[in-house]
Amino acid sequence: MTSDETPSTARPAPATRSAFRLFRQLTTRWSDNDVYGHMNNVVHYSLFDTAVNGWLIEEGLLDPARSETIGLVVETGCRYHGELMFPEPVTAGIAVGRLGRSSVRYEIALFGGDKETAAAEGFFIHVYVDRNTRRPVPISDAMRAKFQELAR
Amino acid sequence: MTSDETPSTARPAPATRSAFRLFRQLTTRWSDNDVYGHMNNVVHYSLFDTAVNGWLIEEGLLDPARSETIGLVVETGCRYHGELMFPEPVTAGIAVGRLGRSSVRYEIALFGGDKETAAAEGFFIHVYVDRNTRRPVPISDAMRAKFQELAR
Amino acid sequence: MTSDETPSTARPAPATRSAFRLFRQLTTRWSDNDVYGHMNNVVHYSLFDTAVNGWLIEEGLLDPARSETIGLVVETGCRYHGELMFPEPVTAGIAVGRLGRSSVRYEIALFGGDKETAAAEGFFIHVYVDRNTRRPVPISDAMRAKFQELAR
Amino acid sequence: MTSDETPSTARPAPATRSAFRLFRQLTTRWSDNDVYGHMNNVVHYSLFDTAVNGWLIEEGLLDPARSETIGLVVETGCRYHGELMFPEPVTAGIAVGRLGRSSVRYEIALFGGDKETAAAEGFFIHVYVDRNTRRPVPISDAMRAKFQELAR
Repeated sequence: MTSDETPSTARPAPATRSAFRLFRQLTTRWSDNDVYGHMNNVVHYSLFDTAVNGWLIEEGLLDPARSETIGLVVETGCRYHGELMFPEPVTAGIAVGRLGRSSVRYEIALFGGDKETAAAEGFFIHVYVDRNTRRPVPISDAMRAKFQELAR
Repeated sequence: MTSDETPSTARPAPATRSAFRLFRQLTTRWSDNDVYGHMNNVVHYSLFDTAVNGWLIEEGLLDPARSETIGLVVETGCRYHGELMFPEPVTAGIAVGRLGRSSVRYEIALFGGDKETAAAEGFFIHVYVDRNTRRPVPISDAMRAKFQELAR
Repeated sequence: MTSDETPSTARPAPATRSAFRLFRQLTTRWSDNDVYGHMNNVVHYSLFDTAVNGWLIEEGLLDPARSETIGLVVETGCRYHGELMFPEPVTAGIAVGRLGRSSVRYEIALFGGDKETAAAEGFFIHVYVDRNTRRPVPISDAMRAKFQELAR
Repeated sequence: MTSDETPSTARPAPATRSAFRLFRQLTTRWSDNDVYGHMNNVVHYSLFDTAVNGWLIEEGLLDPARSETIGLVVETGCRYHGELMFPEPVTAGIAVGRLGRSSVRYEIALFGGDKETAAAEGFFIHVYVDRNTRRPVPISDAMRAKFQELAR
C-alpha cells in the first residue's frame, strides 16, 4: 500500500488472465472460509504451492520423495484484490518472473470461477538446494528450459 | 479393527464406486501430504466436509452465512484402506445412511484418480439446530426429499 | 447416536480429566474457527495427531525422518460434546485403550481452557509398519512398556 | 533476494527478540511439517494471524462474531531465514510498522524454541472496514492507542 488513505486507487490494477500462459484448475474447501465467510488469507499461499508443485511433478521436474535437489522457499508475498469463497473453483495462472543460477521467482494469480480479473496476486522464490546439505545448487538445463517457457 | 493380528483381512472389503450415486470431484494440495509422503489422515475429513457441504450449497439447501438452521457435526469416523497422495485428484462418493427427525448420517468414500476401490470410507452425522439457540430442529421436507434420493 | 430424538441424553456422558494420566497443552489458531465461529470438526483430528506424536517424539519413541518403523493410521473417530473456539487453549488427555502385537489404539479427550469435562473424545489406531515395505511389524518392548503406562 | 548467487549474505540479517516488546507463545502441529520434514512455508502465515488476532481478542479490540468493523487483509509477505519444525514451540514477536487512518501494518517475527534469532519475518496489512459494506472506516482512538504502544 503506497497510501494509507486510498488503498484501492494507489495500487496497481489486478492482473488479467491474458498475462499468463500456464493455468492450473483448483478446488476450494469448506475450511478455506474463515469466520468472515471468505477464503482466509493464508489459503492463497497453499494454492500457490499446489499450483506450482503440481505442475513441477507432472512435468517430471520434481519427485518430492526422491529428488536430489529440492526447492526451498526463501520469500513469499501476496496482494489481495477481492474475495474468493468456497465452493467457487479457482484457476491459478503461473509465470516465471526471474530466473537466477539457483533460484526462480514464480508469479501466480488466482482467479475465482470464470472471472478475468485476479482476486489475488502473489509470488514465491525457490532456491534449489541439495536435499541433504541444503546448500544451493545450479538449476539444471532441463528445468531451466521449462522455466523459460513461462518467463515474462 | 476386530483383530490386532490380522487387520487387513478382518475388516470389511473397501467400497466400490457402484455403491454411490452422487459423486464430487476434488483436488488435492501440496500440504495434504505429510512427512511420510502421503495424505495425512486428517485431510480426509476436510474432503468429507467439502464434498457434502459443496453439494448442499449447490442444491440450495445451505447458505452458510444466512441459513436459520445449520448442521452441527456430532460424530465422525473414517477407516483408511490405502494411500491417497497429492497431486492425484480424488472423487468423493456420497450416500445417506440414516435419516432421523433432526439428524442425517452421511457416508462418504474417497477414490484416488480413476480407481474403482475406495482408499478411505467415513461418515459424519449432522444434527440440524437453530443457528442462534443451537437447539435441534426438524429437517425440512425439501431437504428430507433430497436426502432420500441419496438413501441406501 | 442411538436415538435421533434425544442425541444428548442417549450418548455416554463426556469424559472428565480424571480418566487420563497424560496431558498435553495445545494452542488454537485463528483458522481453526470456521464460518460458524467455532472450531471446525476436522481440527480435532489434527490436535489428536499433534498430542500423540508430540509425546512419542519427546519420549524418543518416534523420529519422523528416520525411524525404521512408522505408525500408519488405519481408523479414527470422534464424538463432539461441545464447542471449542480460538483463542481458547486446549488440553489433550491421552490414554491407551488397546494394545495388540502391531497396533495401538489411542483414546484422546480435548478439554477447553480449564474445563473438567471434555468437549470432544476421539480415538485413532496406529498399525506399526516397516517404513519401506509398509508391512506390519511387532511393537518393540521399549515402546510397549511406555504404552502400558497409559493403559486404562 | 537481491542476488541469485549469494542469497544468504545479500539479505538483511534476521531480527532478534530485542526488536519486539509484545510476544505470543504458540505451539506447532504434526501437520505443519511437510514432506521435507520442516514447517511448510504456508503455516507461518497462519501463525501470524493467530498471534495478532489472539492479541486483539484478548485486549478487547476484536470480537470476530460481533465487531462492527473488521480488519481485512490486503497484503502479506514473509522472508524465511531458517527452519521451524514440529514439535518445537514457537514464539511470535509483534510490532506495528505503520499506522494509517484505516490501516495498520503488523510486523511479526517467529522464533523457534529459545532461539534469539528469527527463523522467519513477515508482515500483514489490515484495512479496517465496515463489516457489512466492506468500506474503509477510521481506526478508533482506543485501538490507535494500543497500536502505538507497539510502534517501532
